[in-house]
Amino acid sequence: MTQATLGRVDAYAAQEAGASLAPFDYEPAALGPHDVEIAISHCGICHSDLHLIDNDWMTSKYPLVPGHEIVGTVAQKGALVSQLELGARVGVGWQCGSCLECEWCERGDENLCANSVQTCVGRPGGFADRIRIDGRFAFAIPDALGSEAAAPLFCGGVTVYSPIAQHARPQSRVGIIGIGGLGHLAIRFARAFGCEVTAFSSTAAKEEEARALGAHHFVSSVDDRALRAQGESLDLIVSTVNAPLDWKRYVNALRPDGVLSFVGAITEPLSIPTGLLLSRRRSVTGNPIGGRVAMREMLDFAARHGIGAQVETLPMTEVNTALDRLRRNDVRYRFVLSRS
Amino acid sequence: MTQATLGRVDAYAAQEAGASLAPFDYEPAALGPHDVEIAISHCGICHSDLHLIDNDWMTSKYPLVPGHEIVGTVAQKGALVSQLELGARVGVGWQCGSCLECEWCERGDENLCANSVQTCVGRPGGFADRIRIDGRFAFAIPDALGSEAAAPLFCGGVTVYSPIAQHARPQSRVGIIGIGGLGHLAIRFARAFGCEVTAFSSTAAKEEEARALGAHHFVSSVDDRALRAQGESLDLIVSTVNAPLDWKRYVNALRPDGVLSFVGAITEPLSIPTGLLLSRRRSVTGNPIGGRVAMREMLDFAARHGIGAQVETLPMTEVNTALDRLRRNDVRYRFVLSRS
Repeated sequence: MTQATLGRVDAYAAQEAGASLAPFDYEPAALGPHDVEIAISHCGICHSDLHLIDNDWMTSKYPLVPGHEIVGTVAQKGALVSQLELGARVGVGWQCGSCLECEWCERGDENLCANSVQTCVGRPGGFADRIRIDGRFAFAIPDALGSEAAAPLFCGGVTVYSPIAQHARPQSRVGIIGIGGLGHLAIRFARAFGCEVTAFSSTAAKEEEARALGAHHFVSSVDDRALRAQGESLDLIVSTVNAPLDWKRYVNALRPDGVLSFVGAITEPLSIPTGLLLSRRRSVTGNPIGGRVAMREMLDFAARHGIGAQVETLPMTEVNTALDRLRRNDVRYRFVLSRS
Repeated sequence: MTQATLGRVDAYAAQEAGASLAPFDYEPAALGPHDVEIAISHCGICHSDLHLIDNDWMTSKYPLVPGHEIVGTVAQKGALVSQLELGARVGVGWQCGSCLECEWCERGDENLCANSVQTCVGRPGGFADRIRIDGRFAFAIPDALGSEAAAPLFCGGVTVYSPIAQHARPQSRVGIIGIGGLGHLAIRFARAFGCEVTAFSSTAAKEEEARALGAHHFVSSVDDRALRAQGESLDLIVSTVNAPLDWKRYVNALRPDGVLSFVGAITEPLSIPTGLLLSRRRSVTGNPIGGRVAMREMLDFAARHGIGAQVETLPMTEVNTALDRLRRNDVRYRFVLSRS
């Protein structure tokens, strides 16, 4: 057990809802026996960080240090941390704790634990030089994955990997709605699974990018005629968008036993005729991030297939530039903040 | 191959939408090589028969002979019918044909075949003395099941058996919404599966019946406070009703990975916030009757556990009395018409 004193943590925080981030330092909590202190090299920016800054979920507390796509090296470790060595390169995502005793935790679905702890909700996140966090939710990064490309895997990556791993077979025909921070990874994962991949986007100009990422087909997500023409063609559709679409069309595009899975909450309730579900035994569902088994599987699979996020890296000092541009959706496809 | 000529079929038909049924006879189609002619002893009455009579689905053709919970004995058989002997007691449900060549048919999910044929849609049904039908969709009835109690198994029974068989384990906590023709069988099946069973009904007076059928718990389906109190308690909810309920409450009553399955189409589209699905990885789905594998499984399981429908039997001559009472929901729990 090392307990070197590095002093206060240098972070960036919003002092109130919607505020720009400003330098902020805090005294870290004592390093618990299961904790690691991570010297942060990179942190991705997820849309959820904007929601937290803006208090969209009415749960934010300020000062608020965002950041939950964290990559760095283990700088200190508690007495009971046995799986991670000092200096190991690790990542942390949206979840940094759970009870580890309930049935969901026991079966490796910690993301379904009722006592899940979030990395930057009610506790400081990764827009900082360091973070102290439960080492059981820090994951070693395979050497084949660069730190910048790996950072977004810890939230966006596992979020889209999970429904594909749960519902797709290599023979499946998979649709991905939205080609952004999540969608571009979903296309790559589905392609690497061996699936036939259809990308849906409201931006016709993204067709070329979608195909470069691995999509076999491209369909406008707002072209009613094109959607109708899909017929019953897809086994799985993963929606990565927040905006309401004509979901009936997507359910109708599912083959029998097909699944429409949401990984991002839609602003309006779904409106779906039950007949569309029961006539073809289709399902509508959703996936929240992924448990620890899914996280390790995803990292291993990503390393084997060379799947990293396509990112734009800015120094952490330019965090407000990145946030402003993300608000305008001006990023291909994920911002990563770098401390180096 | 026997080809005894029995002359015209004596049936009951509606001559126009919503009409009372009247005696009607027709010349049966030639007996095909895969066909059997069934001498009908009993036929259950399903709500779908009312929908067909009333042209609720805008597809009815008149004269219309309803009836798709048919029980009788094989009176004739085509040259290629090898599995059924003359005199065998058999039943036929909603489906009487499929392509038998597509992937869904090949995997035993004929109910998902795009070329499914319905027993009394566009062809005469079981309110008759006889029916000629594809013998591959007629199923031998185990000796342990009486004909009256067995008739409703062929539509209502397999319809509720299928989602339970697909989604429940003996350890599951299962909710059944509606205690009618379908719901009363669903309670019995779920109980026999070994599940903990909660019955939901808008009729408080049905609590005693629900418990007698095997329900461990009874909850008012329209008592918002009682529904909230369910917490995350159920792994599977099967809705057998047609009326819109507050579906958000039912989704919220699902545990993680829980499934809400509709076996009856609801008159209004579902309105469900995606957050309720994705936060707990819940699914909303539906089941259309069941394939041939499910049908045989269900009959075998029903025979082993003594599960038959609770019926009120009327002579087929009183079909209009039965239909009128069914329109008023005045039946416990299924009418069966008898020719004997």
